[in-house]
Amino acid sequence: MENIEKKEQLYEGKAKKVYATNDPNLVIVDYKDDATAFNGVKKGTITGKGVINNKMTNFMFSLLEKEGVPTHLVKEISDRETIVKKVSIVPLEVIVRNVAAGSFSKRMGVEEGKQLLCPILEFSYKCDELNDPFINDDYALALGIATKEEIDTIKTLTLKVNAFMKDFFKKLNIDLIDFKIEFGKTPDGQIILADEISPDTCRFWDSTTHEKLDKDRFRRDLGGVEEAYHEIMKRIGLGE
Amino acid sequence: MENIEKKEQLYEGKAKKVYATNDPNLVIVDYKDDATAFNGVKKGTITGKGVINNKMTNFMFSLLEKEGVPTHLVKEISDRETIVKKVSIVPLEVIVRNVAAGSFSKRMGVEEGKQLLCPILEFSYKCDELNDPFINDDYALALGIATKEEIDTIKTLTLKVNAFMKDFFKKLNIDLIDFKIEFGKTPDGQIILADEISPDTCRFWDSTTHEKLDKDRFRRDLGGVEEAYHEIMKRIGLGE
Repeated sequence: MENIEKKEQLYEGKAKKVYATNDPNLVIVDYKDDATAFNGVKKGTITGKGVINNKMTNFMFSLLEKEGVPTHLVKEISDRETIVKKVSIVPLEVIVRNVAAGSFSKRMGVEEGKQLLCPILEFSYKCDELNDPFINDDYALALGIATKEEIDTIKTLTLKVNAFMKDFFKKLNIDLIDFKIEFGKTPDGQIILADEISPDTCRFWDSTTHEKLDKDRFRRDLGGVEEAYHEIMKRIGLGE
Repeated sequence: MENIEKKEQLYEGKAKKVYATNDPNLVIVDYKDDATAFNGVKKGTITGKGVINNKMTNFMFSLLEKEGVPTHLVKEISDRETIVKKVSIVPLEVIVRNVAAGSFSKRMGVEEGKQLLCPILEFSYKCDELNDPFINDDYALALGIATKEEIDTIKTLTLKVNAFMKDFFKKLNIDLIDFKIEFGKTPDGQIILADEISPDTCRFWDSTTHEKLDKDRFRRDLGGVEEAYHEIMKRIGLGE
């Protein structure tokens, strides 16, 4: 592990860059401060976000590994950089909703904050040109996006992630409203948690005040964006 | 059954009116020639459609009953009128897709006519104000739209309907591209097929020429709308 060298950039996404290394099975992710919303229509910067999302993701992934959720995490190597297993990303955004909010509330005519009768697990097809359309399991099968076995594994792991995270954040007086995760496939076909878990990809509300502690502060121009990211880190125990 | 009398109108939809009868468990549906598309934005008339849809629906429902699919059909009483069991409609549009077409093709970037790897069964939440949004099973459960048992029954019956209809129309040199059905709940909680099965609610393509024999001729101003409806009736064996 000591001899891992950062090589050429493979990919630059909205919030992260990915670099090759001298090990073909490992890559380095490098978290940026760039913030986007509404599929890239709104752009900005959240100072320090890259550092926070890197550290928080690695912290959460370490905990989830102990809960039996395999992840791509290998080793954090700097404030913004982490070595991870190279995977092919399953082109599904996996979204869990515990409480109505955001696009769901709008589309379904349900007020933000309404507790759902059970958690919703939903898939969007990761495809920028199509605006990541919402799909169901049959769409994924019928279009060859994923196999039945992959979908079953992804659902089982996702519900485990939700159960763990909901509990974990509740103890910090934070309600986990909803979140988005992604999975990757290793060369030997194992499905593992990839991408990130951060205030960019989760909705966190203070349980008492219902104050938003996530990227909605940026999306909706609520102010106090950096402060919200730092508040989450502080409650997790990673704050300075 | 001889003493069923038509009473006050209970409801007028886009394509049908429903009347009470002197039997509280029965209503009369009356099929109109009115045609609408794009959630009522486009309006028109298809002369003779009401008669065709009434007769075709009753014919298909009779066949499906023999296949073990319970339906609301009781008795056809005129060209446009049929006595059916009174049910509370489950607010789900149940859509099956065998081949890509229409809104699915547009949203998913898949060309019309592409065979899907497996049939897609999907739900829209019947709600005019929300434009009948596409949902998944979890949405239905989380918002109390249907129970797990109702969803399971609806799916099992719908796949039976698809298997039977695909076969039935293939023998008439017609490809069943996709269709929409609805289910109702009887006072004792039984889920039965309701609404209609017609060129209004199915996409039918001639297997050889791929000519459209359904409401897409109206939606897309292709001409020959009435002729298409009559052609379907002729092939079924109900034409004049």
